[in-house]
Amino acid sequence: MSVKSFFRVRFYETDEMGVVHHSNYIRWFEVGRVDFLRSVGITLDELMNDGILFPITQVSAKYLLPAKFDDELELETIPVALTKFKMEFEYKVRRKGEEKILTEGFSQNVFTNMKTGKISALPEKFLSRLIQKSSEELQK
Amino acid sequence: MSVKSFFRVRFYETDEMGVVHHSNYIRWFEVGRVDFLRSVGITLDELMNDGILFPITQVSAKYLLPAKFDDELELETIPVALTKFKMEFEYKVRRKGEEKILTEGFSQNVFTNMKTGKISALPEKFLSRLIQKSSEELQK
Amino acid sequence: MSVKSFFRVRFYETDEMGVVHHSNYIRWFEVGRVDFLRSVGITLDELMNDGILFPITQVSAKYLLPAKFDDELELETIPVALTKFKMEFEYKVRRKGEEKILTEGFSQNVFTNMKTGKISALPEKFLSRLIQKSSEELQK
Amino acid sequence: MSVKSFFRVRFYETDEMGVVHHSNYIRWFEVGRVDFLRSVGITLDELMNDGILFPITQVSAKYLLPAKFDDELELETIPVALTKFKMEFEYKVRRKGEEKILTEGFSQNVFTNMKTGKISALPEKFLSRLIQKSSEELQK
Repeated sequence: MSVKSFFRVRFYETDEMGVVHHSNYIRWFEVGRVDFLRSVGITLDELMNDGILFPITQVSAKYLLPAKFDDELELETIPVALTKFKMEFEYKVRRKGEEKILTEGFSQNVFTNMKTGKISALPEKFLSRLIQKSSEELQK
Repeated sequence: MSVKSFFRVRFYETDEMGVVHHSNYIRWFEVGRVDFLRSVGITLDELMNDGILFPITQVSAKYLLPAKFDDELELETIPVALTKFKMEFEYKVRRKGEEKILTEGFSQNVFTNMKTGKISALPEKFLSRLIQKSSEELQK
Repeated sequence: MSVKSFFRVRFYETDEMGVVHHSNYIRWFEVGRVDFLRSVGITLDELMNDGILFPITQVSAKYLLPAKFDDELELETIPVALTKFKMEFEYKVRRKGEEKILTEGFSQNVFTNMKTGKISALPEKFLSRLIQKSSEELQK
Repeated sequence: MSVKSFFRVRFYETDEMGVVHHSNYIRWFEVGRVDFLRSVGITLDELMNDGILFPITQVSAKYLLPAKFDDELELETIPVALTKFKMEFEYKVRRKGEEKILTEGFSQNVFTNMKTGKISALPEKFLSRLIQKSSEELQK
């Protein structure tokens, strides 16, 4: 299963080339992750209140076609690995209702203990929510 | 006395109109405040470690002339009120070495207690550093 | 009449103090202006295609209470002057469904000719749309 | 050969986790590319005035260690492919004067014709400057 987020391109997200600045897709991917987690009943505040941080360890994007100011975009967030130690997602950005992909991306986050800063297993109560909504293949 | 900061306009700070997006000046003013405080021997980390926050309560800007990508800018940060309860600064942005002002601004920060969230007097050890570098007229 | 925009605070909009960085409100005000103009049938692209730019000349904000990550916000954009030469708006940011104001702001844009860079009267076809939706008092 | 850029982390570049938000590294890589091109005598304005755009087609980053507010950073920009059709760079971000890498990255830009939007060979006058400063191995 994947989760879709919808939003319009804001004017400040454009640059002098007249298109969306590429760094904004990296920010939108984060919006997609948050929406995915919300859809499985996890909020970042809840994680942080339990002493869990989830720093990003990798991100990448391929830019195929530009988005422009005021475009209505659809961001698809697809879990590709959800385990007690990490979350990996793929992303596809399209104009709303269109097939062609504008940008695709990938990210990896790990779970860490806020106090030690070390990688730390996600507590069962969160993990079960994460995995319940993802296919068996994802649990690597 | 005022403090000058120097930096180049970054590409991502431009927008579709081909000039610097106006929100970046507000961000640069913050760079100026940090440079001012550093010049009097105060770092934000030190304040935060002492339980002091310094939320911004007002900001304004007048945009006279646009700055462009790669421009070398000079930001002048001028204290207009430095007291135990608040810091007020004015800002002037010019191209390096030029007289004419591109943007001018104003900000007000108050000091608050991190735990209570209430306005709180700045401890003497910080206040003396702040005031030592400012003219008598500033101490209202 | 005023126009309301609704959106959630994104994680990247927070800063080390754990609240929304103040510069984002200035960016959101722009989102409000765009939504206001869309509501009266004007898109920025249409203006730009007609050779009209609308640089911002003033902006200000008063920060009363902080917004936090994931808050659902309501931005009210209130026209206070809409003429052939300028647009002035006031802004109020609240949590969705709450009365208390978190941040309030003001902006002024002028209309300029893309080629000359000079202030230039907004063509009648746009002005009539702007004014038709605003009260008589606004036409100064 | 590589080019180094030096800058401090700005407060607005931090997020609620108390470290630099990951999207800023992607923005800093752009600062590195611009500094590299300037070092070989090419400005983006000159390219754009000649009708050449240089959209980014890929970007990636690995985040190893966090940078914090006010850190003085050193960004190393290393060309890995500079041809008439594309530029590829690697990036390494360190604290100034330290060995350990905080973040490393990669980007690919292609040259396109502003009018047609198609990939287009970089004119000889620019290519010779690009290549003169890069090792033979880079010219693929």
